Amino acid sequence: MNYAIVFRLLGYILLCEGGLMCLPALVSALYHEWDVLWIFLFTVALCFVIGLSLTFLKPRRKIFYMRESCVTAALTWVVISVMGAVPFVLSGAIPDPVAALFETVSGFTTTGASVLADVESLPMGILFWRSFTHWIGGMGILVFLLAVMPLAGGSHVNLMKAESPGPQVEKMVPSVQATAKILYTIYLGMTILQILFMLAGGCPLMDTLLITFGTAGTGGFGVRNDSLASYSTYIQVVVTVFMILFGVNFSAYFYLTRRKFKKAIAIEEVRWYLIVIAAAIAMVSWNIRDLFPDFRTAVQQAAFQVGSIITTTGFSSCDYDLWPPFAKTVLVTLMFIGACAGSTGGGMKISRLVTLAKSIRKEIQQTLHPNAVTPVRVDGKPINHETLRSINVFMAAYIIIFTVSVLLVSLDGYSMTTNFTAVAATFNNIGPGLEGVGPTANFGFYSSFSKLVLTFDMLAGRLELFPMLLLFAPETWKKF
Amino acid sequence: MNYAIVFRLLGYILLCEGGLMCLPALVSALYHEWDVLWIFLFTVALCFVIGLSLTFLKPRRKIFYMRESCVTAALTWVVISVMGAVPFVLSGAIPDPVAALFETVSGFTTTGASVLADVESLPMGILFWRSFTHWIGGMGILVFLLAVMPLAGGSHVNLMKAESPGPQVEKMVPSVQATAKILYTIYLGMTILQILFMLAGGCPLMDTLLITFGTAGTGGFGVRNDSLASYSTYIQVVVTVFMILFGVNFSAYFYLTRRKFKKAIAIEEVRWYLIVIAAAIAMVSWNIRDLFPDFRTAVQQAAFQVGSIITTTGFSSCDYDLWPPFAKTVLVTLMFIGACAGSTGGGMKISRLVTLAKSIRKEIQQTLHPNAVTPVRVDGKPINHETLRSINVFMAAYIIIFTVSVLLVSLDGYSMTTNFTAVAATFNNIGPGLEGVGPTANFGFYSSFSKLVLTFDMLAGRLELFPMLLLFAPETWKKF
Repeated sequence: MNYAIVFRLLGYILLCEGGLMCLPALVSALYHEWDVLWIFLFTVALCFVIGLSLTFLKPRRKIFYMRESCVTAALTWVVISVMGAVPFVLSGAIPDPVAALFETVSGFTTTGASVLADVESLPMGILFWRSFTHWIGGMGILVFLLAVMPLAGGSHVNLMKAESPGPQVEKMVPSVQATAKILYTIYLGMTILQILFMLAGGCPLMDTLLITFGTAGTGGFGVRNDSLASYSTYIQVVVTVFMILFGVNFSAYFYLTRRKFKKAIAIEEVRWYLIVIAAAIAMVSWNIRDLFPDFRTAVQQAAFQVGSIITTTGFSSCDYDLWPPFAKTVLVTLMFIGACAGSTGGGMKISRLVTLAKSIRKEIQQTLHPNAVTPVRVDGKPINHETLRSINVFMAAYIIIFTVSVLLVSLDGYSMTTNFTAVAATFNNIGPGLEGVGPTANFGFYSSFSKLVLTFDMLAGRLELFPMLLLFAPETWKKF
Repeated sequence: MNYAIVFRLLGYILLCEGGLMCLPALVSALYHEWDVLWIFLFTVALCFVIGLSLTFLKPRRKIFYMRESCVTAALTWVVISVMGAVPFVLSGAIPDPVAALFETVSGFTTTGASVLADVESLPMGILFWRSFTHWIGGMGILVFLLAVMPLAGGSHVNLMKAESPGPQVEKMVPSVQATAKILYTIYLGMTILQILFMLAGGCPLMDTLLITFGTAGTGGFGVRNDSLASYSTYIQVVVTVFMILFGVNFSAYFYLTRRKFKKAIAIEEVRWYLIVIAAAIAMVSWNIRDLFPDFRTAVQQAAFQVGSIITTTGFSSCDYDLWPPFAKTVLVTLMFIGACAGSTGGGMKISRLVTLAKSIRKEIQQTLHPNAVTPVRVDGKPINHETLRSINVFMAAYIIIFTVSVLLVSLDGYSMTTNFTAVAATFNNIGPGLEGVGPTANFGFYSSFSKLVLTFDMLAGRLELFPMLLLFAPETWKKF
């Protein structure tokens, strides 16, 4: 392990976080929340002091292996969460440090699971920081670092690989830093677009900003206690559309900006993503049609919930825990499917599932024609053996971490559906689950131990398992 | 598709079934149940007439490809179940044909899920047949056919592969037929041993026979309405031990009979199987210790339930649906793990999970040392690429079938835990689940559509997915 280079990067990350935290400080100042302002300024100072001292480390070698990248990614997310939790604790919004860490990790990982029952009473600066973490975490803070800082030497593609969701990272342009810049440009552009649409519908500015942060990062922290239920139909529809858009593979937008329409349409993952959404909306609206005055409302509510859960955002427009079992089962299934790779969404990712489904078809054909050679193809290109293997290992690790988490959390004694969906909602970075952790409830009642388990799940889910698992392999820490 | 050879084999299978059905006919005669006797004789005659006429088919080619083997295996299990359901319908024990098919498939696949609330009122002949199907299905009827009939030509190892549980079939001796004979000899020997132990504990003869059939096949149909709760502790302990023994890879017993003790102990799967059982018993007994007068009873009840569920037998000695969430979650986890490959148990099989766990470790090591070559090893031998791929595809297909089944069954509107555990209990060939399908309940309330879905799951689970999936691939039925 090349410790010096890892710590140096963590230093840069802290500088970034300190810089980003000036924004909520500004909001506190605008709202005359002087106590909160001092707390933010103190935390910013803390970030700068620790960050600067770490950047003075001089690594002898600058080469970055996959091992260093994974460890950096994992530690980055732990460090920004610990630092990000400081304002929650000091301001008294969430005095318990474990709960505050849970809330911050939930923010950065764009999960949106909350320990708070009453968010409307929070100071605006704190509320802003809470939602802003979604926006930072959505596209990734290491990607942000790559976009804004000219890091010298080293192969930074591994760093991006370790943080970006999906089985493969597609560099849009040959340079990693240019790719990072393009990603953040698209991200920022779409965020501004949504803000304009929300404001056009008469949504207050602060609500607009915070809801947009939650949508763009596919996070899900709300501004009101009932999430989005009390907003107008127009706002709900705008959010529905943008949730679904932020769950699309960003490569599609890149091709669109370059006017390569054919290439954009050729992405199989996006097609399947839209097909799954359409099918889920159809099934759910049909199942819940009797719960609403007219079918149009049922479709709109179904679309909101389907969009919110498949993109792993986790906003809610009504208490879907009261829906019939079929509709709930569809939603739970969507929890696992997740959004596209290369988007801000979580879950297993459509591309992984498409590849797996194709490998099943291949196996059947191989039984029928033992001598035929039929590689698994996605987007017309054969999938290489390494990718297929890593998808399979991902699935296996996913199932094992999921099972162990449910077992550990069930020690608290709550109902099985609560525990199962609590793990599903945190591991897939969604937010709310069903029953005890349903859309009208929160995660505050779980023990500190369970909160730590779920915190680990959120981080493991966001970083797609392996960076977090590496932290626990003793061999990782060997000096070489 | 070589239709002639498939149908000819189905003919032989029907002859076997007719022969085996003489046993319940005999029991009916002994109990003076003349109505039932005539029904059995009628069904036996039906098996013989259809079976004999099919065996007159003369296939031009005798070579048997994997395709024919899989289709034969799948159709075999459908045909014996349809024929096996006839006595249930005609005797009025289960007048609804769909429910009768469910019960028979549940018997042959050694699931043990029942649609009957009151089994004590059934005629003894029917009760005998119901449990006897477990014994037949446990080791497999095609394996039985291979053991008793000298089939000429063809590579019968594919036939055995298609029916035997586990990712790989190990031929104990070079000849398939000799292997089949050895398997049935061990199976019969252990069955007799259990019968002797049960009789020694004062269990009535008929109860002894039927419970032993259920234990040996890891089936789980009981003789009393409360399954095994009202039997003595001695009987419960004997059943616990034998359930666990029948879940062991039969290769271990083969090596033991040949005095190759080192080889028997070297089987990694068996070691992990015993470790998982010990760990589960420890966790469950600790969690349920307050529900029983003393810790010894808690351990005994935990051991019974753990043994019953990990081997996918499904007997119950108490209503574990009332246990705390942690204990129930452990049991649900065991439902998926299942027994050893090459045993009579169901589930995913320990060997698959051990291999997957090792491939995760390999992936982590590969990240740390990108240039190291570390094959996945089980029992000291490197696992070949094909096996690893087929295990991965199995897992993917398993998850997809599972999810679709839960979705379809949830259309009936029962609780999510009921539906989830109903599919888990049938797909893994266990029997009872939780809540609506808990150990004191039955599957009778589900709609005919859901019963058919669960029936498919039982067959797919028993034949390990691919033979059943092949039936639905249009290409399978092409003549060539």
